[in-house]
Amino acid sequence: MKNTFGNNISFTIYGESHGEEIGVVIDGLPSGIKLDLDFINQQINLRKPHGTISTSRKETDEINIVSGFFNGYTTGTPLTIKFKNQNTISKDYHMELLRPSHGDLVAFLKYHGYQDYRGGGHFSGRITVAIVAAGAICLQLLKMKDIKIASHILKLQEFTDTSFSSNTILLDKQIDKCNQSEFSVIDDNVKELMKSRIEDMRLKKDSCGGVIETCVLNVPHSLGEPYFDSVESVLAKLLFSIGGVKGVEFGLGFDFNNYSGSKCNDELHMVDDHIETISNFNGGINGGITNGMPIRIKTVVKPTPSIAQKQNTVNYLTKENTILEINGRHDPCIVHRARVVIDSMVAIGLVDLIMSEYGKHFFEVKND
Amino acid sequence: MKNTFGNNISFTIYGESHGEEIGVVIDGLPSGIKLDLDFINQQINLRKPHGTISTSRKETDEINIVSGFFNGYTTGTPLTIKFKNQNTISKDYHMELLRPSHGDLVAFLKYHGYQDYRGGGHFSGRITVAIVAAGAICLQLLKMKDIKIASHILKLQEFTDTSFSSNTILLDKQIDKCNQSEFSVIDDNVKELMKSRIEDMRLKKDSCGGVIETCVLNVPHSLGEPYFDSVESVLAKLLFSIGGVKGVEFGLGFDFNNYSGSKCNDELHMVDDHIETISNFNGGINGGITNGMPIRIKTVVKPTPSIAQKQNTVNYLTKENTILEINGRHDPCIVHRARVVIDSMVAIGLVDLIMSEYGKHFFEVKND
Amino acid sequence: MKNTFGNNISFTIYGESHGEEIGVVIDGLPSGIKLDLDFINQQINLRKPHGTISTSRKETDEINIVSGFFNGYTTGTPLTIKFKNQNTISKDYHMELLRPSHGDLVAFLKYHGYQDYRGGGHFSGRITVAIVAAGAICLQLLKMKDIKIASHILKLQEFTDTSFSSNTILLDKQIDKCNQSEFSVIDDNVKELMKSRIEDMRLKKDSCGGVIETCVLNVPHSLGEPYFDSVESVLAKLLFSIGGVKGVEFGLGFDFNNYSGSKCNDELHMVDDHIETISNFNGGINGGITNGMPIRIKTVVKPTPSIAQKQNTVNYLTKENTILEINGRHDPCIVHRARVVIDSMVAIGLVDLIMSEYGKHFFEVKND
Amino acid sequence: MKNTFGNNISFTIYGESHGEEIGVVIDGLPSGIKLDLDFINQQINLRKPHGTISTSRKETDEINIVSGFFNGYTTGTPLTIKFKNQNTISKDYHMELLRPSHGDLVAFLKYHGYQDYRGGGHFSGRITVAIVAAGAICLQLLKMKDIKIASHILKLQEFTDTSFSSNTILLDKQIDKCNQSEFSVIDDNVKELMKSRIEDMRLKKDSCGGVIETCVLNVPHSLGEPYFDSVESVLAKLLFSIGGVKGVEFGLGFDFNNYSGSKCNDELHMVDDHIETISNFNGGINGGITNGMPIRIKTVVKPTPSIAQKQNTVNYLTKENTILEINGRHDPCIVHRARVVIDSMVAIGLVDLIMSEYGKHFFEVKND
Repeated sequence: MKNTFGNNISFTIYGESHGEEIGVVIDGLPSGIKLDLDFINQQINLRKPHGTISTSRKETDEINIVSGFFNGYTTGTPLTIKFKNQNTISKDYHMELLRPSHGDLVAFLKYHGYQDYRGGGHFSGRITVAIVAAGAICLQLLKMKDIKIASHILKLQEFTDTSFSSNTILLDKQIDKCNQSEFSVIDDNVKELMKSRIEDMRLKKDSCGGVIETCVLNVPHSLGEPYFDSVESVLAKLLFSIGGVKGVEFGLGFDFNNYSGSKCNDELHMVDDHIETISNFNGGINGGITNGMPIRIKTVVKPTPSIAQKQNTVNYLTKENTILEINGRHDPCIVHRARVVIDSMVAIGLVDLIMSEYGKHFFEVKND
Repeated sequence: MKNTFGNNISFTIYGESHGEEIGVVIDGLPSGIKLDLDFINQQINLRKPHGTISTSRKETDEINIVSGFFNGYTTGTPLTIKFKNQNTISKDYHMELLRPSHGDLVAFLKYHGYQDYRGGGHFSGRITVAIVAAGAICLQLLKMKDIKIASHILKLQEFTDTSFSSNTILLDKQIDKCNQSEFSVIDDNVKELMKSRIEDMRLKKDSCGGVIETCVLNVPHSLGEPYFDSVESVLAKLLFSIGGVKGVEFGLGFDFNNYSGSKCNDELHMVDDHIETISNFNGGINGGITNGMPIRIKTVVKPTPSIAQKQNTVNYLTKENTILEINGRHDPCIVHRARVVIDSMVAIGLVDLIMSEYGKHFFEVKND
Repeated sequence: MKNTFGNNISFTIYGESHGEEIGVVIDGLPSGIKLDLDFINQQINLRKPHGTISTSRKETDEINIVSGFFNGYTTGTPLTIKFKNQNTISKDYHMELLRPSHGDLVAFLKYHGYQDYRGGGHFSGRITVAIVAAGAICLQLLKMKDIKIASHILKLQEFTDTSFSSNTILLDKQIDKCNQSEFSVIDDNVKELMKSRIEDMRLKKDSCGGVIETCVLNVPHSLGEPYFDSVESVLAKLLFSIGGVKGVEFGLGFDFNNYSGSKCNDELHMVDDHIETISNFNGGINGGITNGMPIRIKTVVKPTPSIAQKQNTVNYLTKENTILEINGRHDPCIVHRARVVIDSMVAIGLVDLIMSEYGKHFFEVKND
Repeated sequence: MKNTFGNNISFTIYGESHGEEIGVVIDGLPSGIKLDLDFINQQINLRKPHGTISTSRKETDEINIVSGFFNGYTTGTPLTIKFKNQNTISKDYHMELLRPSHGDLVAFLKYHGYQDYRGGGHFSGRITVAIVAAGAICLQLLKMKDIKIASHILKLQEFTDTSFSSNTILLDKQIDKCNQSEFSVIDDNVKELMKSRIEDMRLKKDSCGGVIETCVLNVPHSLGEPYFDSVESVLAKLLFSIGGVKGVEFGLGFDFNNYSGSKCNDELHMVDDHIETISNFNGGINGGITNGMPIRIKTVVKPTPSIAQKQNTVNYLTKENTILEINGRHDPCIVHRARVVIDSMVAIGLVDLIMSEYGKHFFEVKND
C-alpha cells in the first residue's frame, strides 16, 4: 500500500521537498471532532528547525485543511491537510553526485532518473510535516481519552538523559514537560551538553544521531494481535518509515540479553480491582498486545548523512568515482526534531489499533 | 488484517498449541514451482527442539499440503500446509494462574476467557511451525534467484559470536555453514559456551535470551518504498510478530549513536560497471530501499518467560495474589530455534517486496 | 488480496474440487460466540445436490472446525473450517479438451498448465461449500441482531415467482419460508413448473440459469461508504465471485431506465419517531449507504456451461479444433443451490460492513 | 479502505462539492510516463455539463498536479491532482429538508449532522472530476498498450442505440467515434431523440436515467482471480461507487436467463495460432478471468433524484413531514456525462488488475 497506512483510519501522504505542496489525506476520522488548530500548530512548530543547530531553511508551514472539515468540526469524510513549499533553493542540489547514505542512489535505481531529486524529493524529511499534522490530530483524539504520548532524547553520543520514571505520577509530569520543550530532555543539566555537541558537530561540518525514548501513558489494554498486527509490529512499521531510524526496541529491548528470565519477567499483582505487572520490563506489551501498563519504546536515529566534509562518491551519469562537497542547508542533528515525528507515528498507530479493537465510536464525542 | 500478511503474496496462519492442527494458506505463489519437500522438512527439523536445551515436547511435524499443489508443482491457487498436533499434554496448564510475561493476561482481557488457553493457544511458539513451512517455500524461491539468507546467535548473555563478514566470499561460506547447523554460530569455540549456559539455565530453573544476526546476500536493489513499506518497516513488522522479539535493528542500529556522520556514512565507488557502497553501515538499505548490498539485521529475543521457579502472580478468576510454579515442558532458551523463524519471516517479507517491485513473474521458471 | 475478503473480519478460502480438502479461515470473529452447528449443517445441506435436478456427486460435507473454536465457543483467533473431498471421480475430466464457457481456457493461460484441472479445480462450484460454512456463521451473527437474509428464484426462463413483499410482516414470513426450502420460491404454483423445466433440460442434455432475488430485513442504517466501499460495491464484489453470476442489481436495477425521477424517487415520511422512505425503489441503499429499509438485490446466474451435447472446442495441447462431449456428473441448473451461496456472500459482506461502522463488539454477547 | 482503491496502484479521493478543492492521490504509477495533459483535459471536458441538458454550474476544472510529476514525467512517487471549486452557490441547499433518493438522509444518520451538506458534499457527482482525471491517466497507460475503452448510451427510456459490434474492425471505429463525442451514441439517428427526451424532462421538472454499454478491446488474457478479485468483482465494485449506478452486468447479463446453455455457451476455435471464443456471450470473462476477447459491460444509471417538482419529505431537525421544492442547478439526466466516469473506473480497475498479473513494469516505457 506504499504511501497509505492504516486499516480503520488511513493516512495517505504525498509531496516532495521542493514540489508545490506536501499533504496528507486522513480517511476514517469520526465526524464531529472539533479540531484544536492551535495544538496542530504547536506540534508543527515543535518540528520546525530552531537556532543554529538545525537547517536554515525556514517554512511558514501554514496549515490548510481543504476537505473533510466544516464549521470547525470533522465531517467524517476524507480530511486533507496540505502545506505549501515556499523556501526552496533547488540549485543547492546536483542530482548526479550521489550523497552517501542518502536515498539518492536507490532513487536513481528505482525511478530510473525520473525522481524529483530536488532536496531529496519524496525522501526528504520535509515530508514529515504532513505526518506531524496527521499525528497532531491523532494526539488530540488520544488526549480526549487521557492517553498521553511523549518522547525525549535519551542518548546523544555519550550524553545520557534520565529515563522516564516508573512512577506514574512523576511520569505524567515528565510527559508534560517533554511535550512543551523545543529540545526535549528530562534532565536539564544534560540539555546544554547535548546542544553544544550538536553545535560542535555543525562547526566541524559533521553530524550526530541519538536515541529517543518514547512513553505512552493510560493506553487501553487489548490493543494489537498475536500475528501480524502486534503492537510492536504496527509501531515499528511506522517508526521505520521515518528517515534515519535504524533500530526500534520495546521495554528492555536489546538489554533483555543481559538478564535471565527470573530477573526480567514481569510478575503480577492486584492493584485495587485490576491486575498490573509489578515491573514493566516488557514495555506494556505481552504477546503483541497491550496489557495496560505504559508502552515504552526506544528508537535510534542515525547521524544526518548530509555533511559538508568531502566524501567519496560516484557521478551516476558518468559512472565515475568523484568527490562530493555538500553545500546546502542541512541539520547537523535531527534527533530533537525527529521526536515530534516519532510521537506522531506512535499516535497514528495507536488510533488505528484502538479503532480496530474498540470501534471508531471510541473517539466519538458529544460536542455540546 | 491480523493473521494475514502480504500484498502480492499473502500468508494466513491459524491454529493453537493444543488444537487439532496448525496451518498456513499461501496465496499468490506463481504456478509451476517444483517444491523441494526435502528442504521444507530440513527447515522444519531445524526448528524442532533438540537435546536437553529445549522442551521435551516432540512433534513429528509431518507436512501435509492439502491444496494448491498438484503433481509436485504449485498450481498458482492457494497452497495450504497443515501440521497435526499430536504430543499434547493439556493438564500441564492451569489457565487462571497467569504466567508472568506471557500472553495469558492479555488473552484473558482481549478474549474474555474464551481463548484456547492450552499451551498458550494461538500465542504459542508452536504456531511458528506454519511460519517455517511458509518461509521454506519462500527461501526456495529466493534460492532459485541466488538470494541467500542466514542467521546465527551473535550474543547469548556475555558470549559473543563472530559477526558476519563484510567479505562476500567469506560471507557466502558462513551463510552455508549457519544454514546447516542445529545451533547456528560462526565461531565453533563459542558454541559450547553458549550451550552449556543454556544447560546451566535449565538446571537453575531459569532461562535466557540472546541476539540473532541475520544477513541476506544478493538481494535485488530497489525493493521497498520510502513510506510506509520501507524494507525496514516490512521486515520489522514480521520480526516483531515472533513471540519474544523485543528489538530489531538494521546495519549499525543502536550503535549509530556512537558515531558521527563522517564516520558512519557509506561512501560510494564503482565496482566493475555498477555502484556499490564502500562500507555497509546501513545494512543494505537507504531511504527504506535496498541498494544491492547485503541486508544486515539484529534481533533480540527475550528470555523464555516459562521458568520453573516460584513467581508472584494473580489468579484471574478469584482476583487474588498467589504464587505460581510452572511444571510443564519448556525451553530454557529459544534463541537457537528462533533463528529459523527469523530466516523464514525475512524470506516471506522479501518475496512479497520482490513481487511488488518486479512482479510475480520474477520467480517463474521453466521446468523442463 | 485474491482469496481473502474483508477488512475487519476476513475470510480466506482454499481448496480444489478433487483435492484433499476445502476450507476457509475466518479471522476477526468476536470471542464467545456459541456456534450453532445444527444451523451450519442445515445451510450445508441446503447447498447439497438433491434429486435428479442436480449432479449425482454426493459428498457428506462433514464440518471440521480445526482452530479458533474451543469448548463450543469462538476463541477470537482464526477459526478454520474444512471439508474433506471424498466422492471424486477424476477420470471424468480430460483437461486438454477445453469446456466452452468454463474456466478451463483461462486456467491454462493463467497457470501455464499447472492448475489442478480435475473437476474444475479451484474454479469448481465445490469451493462454495467453504463459503456456505463461513456464511452460516455470519448469518448466525446477524440473526442474533434480528437481521434476516433470504433468497428465492425470481425467474427461471419464462417462469416468474412472486416478488418479496413490501409489507414487512408478510416479508418476514416469506423469508422464513424461503430459508427452510430446498427449492426456494414464494409461490408454490411456480415451483413445479420450474423444477420440471430443469428436469426437461437434463433430459435434453441442456441447462438453464435464472434470476435470484435476495432481501435483507432489519439492516442497520449507516453501513457502507460513499466511495469505494459502498454497500452495493461490497456486495457486488462478493456476488460476482460466485461462478456463473453475470449481473447484479439493487432495487429497481435496470428497470430504473423505464421510469422518470418523479416516478421512482423514494419520498420520505415519519414512521413513529424515525424517518422511512415511503417506497423502496432504491433497495435500502442511498449514496452507497444503508438507510434502514430492506436491502433488495437481484442476481442472474447463467446456464451451467457443462452440458452433454456435442460442442465445438479446441484441444489445448495440440491446438486443433475438435468436438467435445462431456460425460461427467453435472447440474442441469444450479440456481436453486446458488441461492444458498448468495445468502452466504451477502451475510459475509454485511458482517464486515457492520464491524466497520459499529465495531466488532456489535456482535459480542453475554453467554450466561 | 473507504476512499482508497487498488492493490498495486492505488487511488485516494477527497473533497466536497462546495469545499475548497477536490483531488486524487495516485500511488504506484511507474516512473517515466510522459503525461498527455491534453488528453486529460479532453476527458475532463467530456465530463463537463454542456448545453441545457445539464446543470448550469460551470467549473473551469483546471488541472493542478502538485506532486509526483516532474519535468513532464511521472516520478514514481504519489501523484496528486487537484481541482479548485469556484462556481459554488451554497444557499441553494437547505440541509434539513432531505432530498428524496439522495444521500441526505444517510449522511445525517452516519455523520450525525457534521457532514458538509453543501451541494451534497462528498456525495456529490462533483467528486467524479477527480476520478475522471485519474481515469485519464489510466486510459493513457492502456492506450500505450493498444487497450481501448469506450462507452455509449445504449438505452434512454424507450430509445435504444445500436450495440457495439462483434466485428473488431467495426468495433474499433465505434470506439473511436464514441470517445470523441460529447453525447456518445453509435447510431446518430437516436441521438436527437434521446437529447430531446432529456430536454423534455428538464421542461417537465423531471429527470431520466439510462443504460450505458461499455467495451474494452485488446485486453490481455489472465487478468483477475477466481475469488474475490474476479474481473467482474473488481469492475463492479468500482462502477457501484458511481452515484446513481444501480445495476451492472457482463456479457448477456440478465438476458442469460432467456437462453439455455446450448444456446449461450461460447464455443472455441483456433484463430491463427491462438484460441478464441466463437461467440462472446460472456463478455470476455470466464471464471472471473479475462480470456482475451472484448470485455462487455452494461451499467444502469437511475434518474437524477434532484427534480424541481414538489416532493414529500421530512425536515430532519424538526422531524416533521413536509414538502420539498428543489430550486438549485441540476442535471435532468447525467447518463451522457456518467459514461466518462464509467470509462475512467473501468480503466482504473484494469490498470490495477494488469499490474497484479504482469507487474508494474508492463507499463514502463523507454522515453527516448
